[in-house]
Amino acid sequence: MTGNHPTSVTIIGLGSMGAALAEAFVKAGHPTTVWNRTAAKAAPLIAMGANHAEAIEDAVTASPLVITCLTTFEDTRLALEPAVTSLPGRAVVTLNSGSPAGARQMATWVNGHGARFLAGAVKNVPSAVGARDTLLYYSGDETVFEEFETTLKVLGGDTVHLGGGADLAALYEMAVGAILLPALVGFFQGAAAVQAHGLEAQSMVRFAGKWLDMIKSLLPVYAEEIDSGDYANAVSSVNLFLAGAAHDDDLATEANVDTTWLVPLYDLLRRAAEAGHGDHSISALTEVLRKSAQA
Amino acid sequence: MTGNHPTSVTIIGLGSMGAALAEAFVKAGHPTTVWNRTAAKAAPLIAMGANHAEAIEDAVTASPLVITCLTTFEDTRLALEPAVTSLPGRAVVTLNSGSPAGARQMATWVNGHGARFLAGAVKNVPSAVGARDTLLYYSGDETVFEEFETTLKVLGGDTVHLGGGADLAALYEMAVGAILLPALVGFFQGAAAVQAHGLEAQSMVRFAGKWLDMIKSLLPVYAEEIDSGDYANAVSSVNLFLAGAAHDDDLATEANVDTTWLVPLYDLLRRAAEAGHGDHSISALTEVLRKSAQA
Ligand SMILES: NC(=O)c1ccc[n+]([C@@H]2O[C@H](COP(=O)([O-])OP(=O)(O)OC[C@H]3O[C@@H](n4cnc5c(N)ncnc54)[C@H](OP(=O)(O)O)[C@@H]3O)[C@@H](O)[C@H]2O)c1
Ligand SMILES: NC(=O)c1ccc[n+]([C@@H]2O[C@H](COP(=O)([O-])OP(=O)(O)OC[C@H]3O[C@@H](n4cnc5c(N)ncnc54)[C@H](OP(=O)(O)O)[C@@H]3O)[C@@H](O)[C@H]2O)c1
Repeated sequence: MTGNHPTSVTIIGLGSMGAALAEAFVKAGHPTTVWNRTAAKAAPLIAMGANHAEAIEDAVTASPLVITCLTTFEDTRLALEPAVTSLPGRAVVTLNSGSPAGARQMATWVNGHGARFLAGAVKNVPSAVGARDTLLYYSGDETVFEEFETTLKVLGGDTVHLGGGADLAALYEMAVGAILLPALVGFFQGAAAVQAHGLEAQSMVRFAGKWLDMIKSLLPVYAEEIDSGDYANAVSSVNLFLAGAAHDDDLATEANVDTTWLVPLYDLLRRAAEAGHGDHSISALTEVLRKSAQA
Repeated sequence: MTGNHPTSVTIIGLGSMGAALAEAFVKAGHPTTVWNRTAAKAAPLIAMGANHAEAIEDAVTASPLVITCLTTFEDTRLALEPAVTSLPGRAVVTLNSGSPAGARQMATWVNGHGARFLAGAVKNVPSAVGARDTLLYYSGDETVFEEFETTLKVLGGDTVHLGGGADLAALYEMAVGAILLPALVGFFQGAAAVQAHGLEAQSMVRFAGKWLDMIKSLLPVYAEEIDSGDYANAVSSVNLFLAGAAHDDDLATEANVDTTWLVPLYDLLRRAAEAGHGDHSISALTEVLRKSAQA
């Protein structure tokens, strides 16, 4: 806590991600205490120089900054329950996935036990923990972020505080994270199609990578359309995507892959066109995604 | 065709993409002849210095290299039909979207009329045409690619010939292109969720961009797993994604967005887990996409 000594940190939960977090702190020279329900998982970290807490109470007591990385908020409360009397005065930082409502509930629980709370999300894979470019965002008690910012940056150079609401990190995690599975399934489907022609999936990696760069370059344009609600200047229209939809049936036939997961996406396109967005930018789908939820 | 004079080029089809192609050639100093069914669309290009062909026959006769950019292969044949007697000896290059089968059919048609054929795809938006990094890939008659490579590079510095089969460009276009719509809908859904909390879609652009970078960095790993068929070393397992699936229901509730389009993706996850891939890499979904098509 004092300027020159690296802050002591406790990591609770040593799964794929938690182990990577603990390793980053050990390597950065922070006195690091680790705890895991299945104690055996602590062994490699102890070998690196981490302190092992056998009891969760000892883990919580060991450091002013307690970082948890369990599967859910509920698991986190279950695990911390025996240690609630040690919580007052500590800063608890969660780094699990969860809903905004879950984060709010967790904040109430942690604050109720006399500790400050920050909810964060690692927007990357375990092997990226510690890299200069790795993004982690946090929301909740700003005093925790200010006090431990340098320490938290050990986990990734791109470390951001989104605001005081404990649910903001979860909201952005969900909002951004929802791109992953659909994008990957799109890639896997393409890989299956390429393989069906006797070619290697590897051969499409460079092209798919450039395609993702292209998608990235479109996001500011789409965000502006969505924020302004003005979809009239279409770079790529809903109708253009509708015309393209027919090709995916060809893909199914041609390459023996299952494209039925795309059907609801075409329904969205059709609903957008029916709502008068045919010649509008594809970003007008946002309106349909919103409206149908209200219906 | 001779070293020092820029090759004469004909562009047939002046929609969003065709107009961008023609503009790039005019600006690069190529004698450029343009034709469009709706002739009025040629006006801005004529103003820039393009030659206007009123009849499709004149457009085809004007240049050794005839590039078409209509909506489909069928539209392309319909448009070229009156000019078939002018085709012998020319090189026809299509730059529309279409199926591998459609490309093979087009090759047969073009070759049958005495012309050489190359099927290409612009893997970017019209405004990116001409940039050093813009990717276009072609497949089909290699002699056409070799003869006109320098000219074709005017449309984008990253210009690749994939192989002799006329259908390869369409295959890769489909395989890679299928990532776009799902990734965008993921982003739009996130934008709607962020807006439902009174925040701007713009605020998630930076995070979504980094997320796409992260996805890009995973592709070589997944491609290797898919090519080797070895899914055992899971960075992110099918079960991890299944656990995450629950959060999307929360998103629907929390942010009033429609997440039903994700349901078939969860079915894929569940089928993968049932097939014994629960602890395997998420790339094992490729097997399910393939298998179910065979079922
Ligand atoms: N891996 C990634 O790529 C990644 C990326 C970004 C975010 N995340 C998020 O990080 C969090 C952890 O992910 P992970 O990949 O590390 O998962 P994991 O490898 O499955 O590890 C889960 C951890 O949670 C512990 N745990 C679960 N329920 C518990 C309970 N009731 N009581 C005590 N401990 C419990 C497990 O303990 P045991 O060892 O005793 O089972 C283990 O330490 C998740 O929310 C995940 O969404 C992961
Ligand atoms: N725009 C993009 O972002 C983009 C990106 C990559 C690939 N592409 C592909 O490029 C191709 C063209 O796209 P675009 O955006 O330029 O489309 P567009 O703006 O809708 O233009 C379509 C063009 O095709 C012509 N056309 C259609 N049917 C015809 C027919 N039967 N006979 C004669 N002409 C016909 C149209 O002529 P009229 O003017 O007379 O209607 C127009 O010139 C599509 O295959 C598309 O998938 C587009």
